[in-house]
Amino acid sequence: MRQRSLLLPTLRDVPADADIISHQLMLRAGMIRQIAAGVYSYLPLAKRVLHKVESIVREEMDAAGAQELTMPTMHPAELWQETGRWDKMGGELMRLKDRHDRDFALGPTHEEVITSILRDSISSYKKLPVNLYQIQTKFRDERRPRFGLLRGREFMMKDAYSFHATPESLDEAYKEMYDAYSRIFSRAGLTFRPVIADSGAIGGKDTHEFMALADVGEDTIAYSDESDYAANIEMAAVKVSYTKPAAEAEDCAKVETGSAKTIEEVSSALSIPEDQIIKTLLVSIDEEWVLVLLRGDHELNDIKLKHELSAGAIRFAEASEVADILSATVGNIGPIGADGVKIIADHAVSAMVNAVCGANEENYHFTGVTADRDFKVDQYADLRFIKEGDPSPCGKGTIRFAQGIEVGQVFKLGTVYSEAMNATILDENGKTQPMIMGCYGVGVSRTVAAIIEQHHDENGIVWPPSVAPYDVHLLTLNSKNAEQSELSEELYQSLKKAGFDVLYDDRPERAGVKFKDSDLIGIPLRVSVGKRAAEGIVEVKIRKTGEVIEVAVADLAEELKTQQKKLEELYQ
Amino acid sequence: MRQRSLLLPTLRDVPADADIISHQLMLRAGMIRQIAAGVYSYLPLAKRVLHKVESIVREEMDAAGAQELTMPTMHPAELWQETGRWDKMGGELMRLKDRHDRDFALGPTHEEVITSILRDSISSYKKLPVNLYQIQTKFRDERRPRFGLLRGREFMMKDAYSFHATPESLDEAYKEMYDAYSRIFSRAGLTFRPVIADSGAIGGKDTHEFMALADVGEDTIAYSDESDYAANIEMAAVKVSYTKPAAEAEDCAKVETGSAKTIEEVSSALSIPEDQIIKTLLVSIDEEWVLVLLRGDHELNDIKLKHELSAGAIRFAEASEVADILSATVGNIGPIGADGVKIIADHAVSAMVNAVCGANEENYHFTGVTADRDFKVDQYADLRFIKEGDPSPCGKGTIRFAQGIEVGQVFKLGTVYSEAMNATILDENGKTQPMIMGCYGVGVSRTVAAIIEQHHDENGIVWPPSVAPYDVHLLTLNSKNAEQSELSEELYQSLKKAGFDVLYDDRPERAGVKFKDSDLIGIPLRVSVGKRAAEGIVEVKIRKTGEVIEVAVADLAEELKTQQKKLEELYQ
Repeated sequence: MRQRSLLLPTLRDVPADADIISHQLMLRAGMIRQIAAGVYSYLPLAKRVLHKVESIVREEMDAAGAQELTMPTMHPAELWQETGRWDKMGGELMRLKDRHDRDFALGPTHEEVITSILRDSISSYKKLPVNLYQIQTKFRDERRPRFGLLRGREFMMKDAYSFHATPESLDEAYKEMYDAYSRIFSRAGLTFRPVIADSGAIGGKDTHEFMALADVGEDTIAYSDESDYAANIEMAAVKVSYTKPAAEAEDCAKVETGSAKTIEEVSSALSIPEDQIIKTLLVSIDEEWVLVLLRGDHELNDIKLKHELSAGAIRFAEASEVADILSATVGNIGPIGADGVKIIADHAVSAMVNAVCGANEENYHFTGVTADRDFKVDQYADLRFIKEGDPSPCGKGTIRFAQGIEVGQVFKLGTVYSEAMNATILDENGKTQPMIMGCYGVGVSRTVAAIIEQHHDENGIVWPPSVAPYDVHLLTLNSKNAEQSELSEELYQSLKKAGFDVLYDDRPERAGVKFKDSDLIGIPLRVSVGKRAAEGIVEVKIRKTGEVIEVAVADLAEELKTQQKKLEELYQ
Repeated sequence: MRQRSLLLPTLRDVPADADIISHQLMLRAGMIRQIAAGVYSYLPLAKRVLHKVESIVREEMDAAGAQELTMPTMHPAELWQETGRWDKMGGELMRLKDRHDRDFALGPTHEEVITSILRDSISSYKKLPVNLYQIQTKFRDERRPRFGLLRGREFMMKDAYSFHATPESLDEAYKEMYDAYSRIFSRAGLTFRPVIADSGAIGGKDTHEFMALADVGEDTIAYSDESDYAANIEMAAVKVSYTKPAAEAEDCAKVETGSAKTIEEVSSALSIPEDQIIKTLLVSIDEEWVLVLLRGDHELNDIKLKHELSAGAIRFAEASEVADILSATVGNIGPIGADGVKIIADHAVSAMVNAVCGANEENYHFTGVTADRDFKVDQYADLRFIKEGDPSPCGKGTIRFAQGIEVGQVFKLGTVYSEAMNATILDENGKTQPMIMGCYGVGVSRTVAAIIEQHHDENGIVWPPSVAPYDVHLLTLNSKNAEQSELSEELYQSLKKAGFDVLYDDRPERAGVKFKDSDLIGIPLRVSVGKRAAEGIVEVKIRKTGEVIEVAVADLAEELKTQQKKLEELYQ
């Protein structure tokens, strides 16, 4: 492609409203333009990268035996009403009415549509398993679209749905998809981790998120520094054996703590460490009041609490409710004397001796509190967020944190959708049973942004070769110089013939502008035709390493192939 | 692909609500399923065909120097308000509001979006021309979605937009796109004609529609039986030299015609041929009343009338208006004595002698009427629809009619959009001017339906090889027979290795079922492994010709390649 004819509107300045690097670079490199909050056009350079990512996804899905289809964007409301998600999805579901006033959703995901297709097409276990995927534009009316392609309202997804007659068959497909996803993100040049994740929102069982590691990631990953263990922090189990300190248990005493309410304030007022304070929370769990206890330096993981109590909805008490139930204000509540309220505590609390807790009386706390002596715990459980430095739950190594961008997810849905929509088959024994389902998503446009988050430097993007928009960037440094432009034309033709995808900067611009743009758009190999053109010598720069070498024209194609191989090894 | 694992829900019966063959066959061959009126899922077999068509489109667009991008589906209302189309498009534009109550359209076409992108990206003639395309889902809220993929509400289009600094540059791009489209539809196996079309709706200048010939087509094409001339009947110019008959002009006389009002009734009442009657129509043209005259056997082409008078809106008079202006009823109006009303007549009227026309008096007509003697015509013009048998306007041959499905259109937009949206450049002289635009569409999903309309027989689809979902359909006739299924497995592997796309019917079904399904889904070459498997002999059937040959396994790959070549020649 001749750059003179390419729509590649690069920008010198960092756009004011772009606050993460991938968003800034995609705007500056002329890859995307916004037409409404969270709604972008992909210009030709971005489109080429998207094609590369899509091809990788398609190859790996096909190799895993999945079949491509395309389902509609417009979903009749009736389908979403069958599963109850027409109401549940709330404001995130984009909705419209047609000219006959019928309700439609713009698909954010396709469980309802695919289940309706399978319900009408398949009636016997003999036709299963089947795994169907599409690569398509999705819609989600995010309250706060931001971070460019990371959180948009219209975005590209690969979504796949598998259908099975037995749980074992689902397990197999899940494993296949897990492996396919590992290959997809490796091939796309991403440093990533599959992490154990929460299945809460969609309803289902096992699920892993594929997290591209990046500081701007909105998810925290807890991983072991000595094993493969990694989980979304929401899901990381705490496996610590707490032992009671040797100190003798003192007597319980009420002390005045005045306005000290938070853990920090009480710690400071009484000059004790935070881990000696019992954090007490009053929570409504499916309309029942429960007192939740944690060690002062720990944070409640509400997903663990939900799972532990198989809860639907959980909600923290308001000040007035705290007053009603415990006759105390929020900063002074505690388990002692909290009769009639169920008490659930994190395991760490069981080892607390001579601790401090609220006295259920304004301005007072108890000291010398010992668990299981001064109050009764109905249930101990793992309720807290894991912390850096905790032992890994896998038994090997210590937990460290990293931030991640979720680029994929694999999910055992089970029969949530097939039961709601009555998608059944006859099994081997002639009995009717709901199909068993899995679903598998890749954020295609988000993957492109994640690649840039991981692969850039101060001058611009540094594309991994597998997803680069072009293989080679050919520059004529002085397009008015006949020798240079003739040689450039020759090389443009011969490199294309040799199988390279070449972007040829034939613009009548200064060399400095061309170098800057070339670094910005980040094609892996740059060939500059400059002063030594007459001698048949050009310059090759490797974008990733910054290395620059002079190459005789006769050796150029071979040298570029050698450099490509080196680069591929570098990215493995 | 193993058919056992493929989602291919074929149907035996013709679905009741499908009234054209492509719709019936796509449902029966398990290619599409409807989820709402005019909204379809493309199942795996259809998806493969769509990919083939898309690849042809992409290759030809890229070869013509166009660049691919993807614009959003959601368009902010503000963009459409700039061109006035937010109101003009009426009910056909799908609309929605986001959570902040902002208005959006679902793109039926992308002139507004692409013009806004170019407006912000390009400011100099030096960056032009540029031609940008996308392959994408479009939305149009058809009042009556029907005919399967031919008139849907959500459908796949390739749309391209070119931008230029000079009209000559647009002419070049138009020619390139015209040629690219001819190659695209030829390669897709279609019999088609590029026809001169009307540019009314979008606003602009030259335009051609690419029409796939098919009886179910909603457009009528007028073409010459001896040249390349073809036009949408709306646009076919009538070039007939009318000569006055030799008969002497009689005197004008008023005759009672009673209740005879229509041309047919008057012809019958007075026993004269229809071509001796003057058809008179009272029309409001941009709020001015005009009397339009035609020969009785001719039909008014209102597009020609509009163009002739550079009219915006035209409307036929209601009965009360006719009474007001001409003091007569609709069936008795005529040009004689119609003072104060402009008269425009088709050229054929100029040669009428001793004709009949309404007398502007209830129950009466005039006879012996001669044009330009008994009434004055302000303007003669070509106002009628061309008829079969008319001479071709190109000067060569006679006009014939055919029905066509519009599968593509190329269009010189000019500056309609760039002026409305202030998308300007500085030209060579440093002067600001609006960019000059062209647009070019291919109905991708509609093309697939048109291919089926042209390529089927009583047993099912007959795919042209270039767009077939698979190259070869391999059938084991008795999958319980070990020799047959072993040989089939071997052939499945070896044919794939030889580069064929193979669908392998490994289902435990009867041979009759497999043959029927094979004919229905229409893969060009069928290989049946049956009774002679033990001898290493299989049967090859060519779907198009019905020819059946026995082939030794050792020669199979070569024989299939030979047959492919033969088929390709057949489709050229």
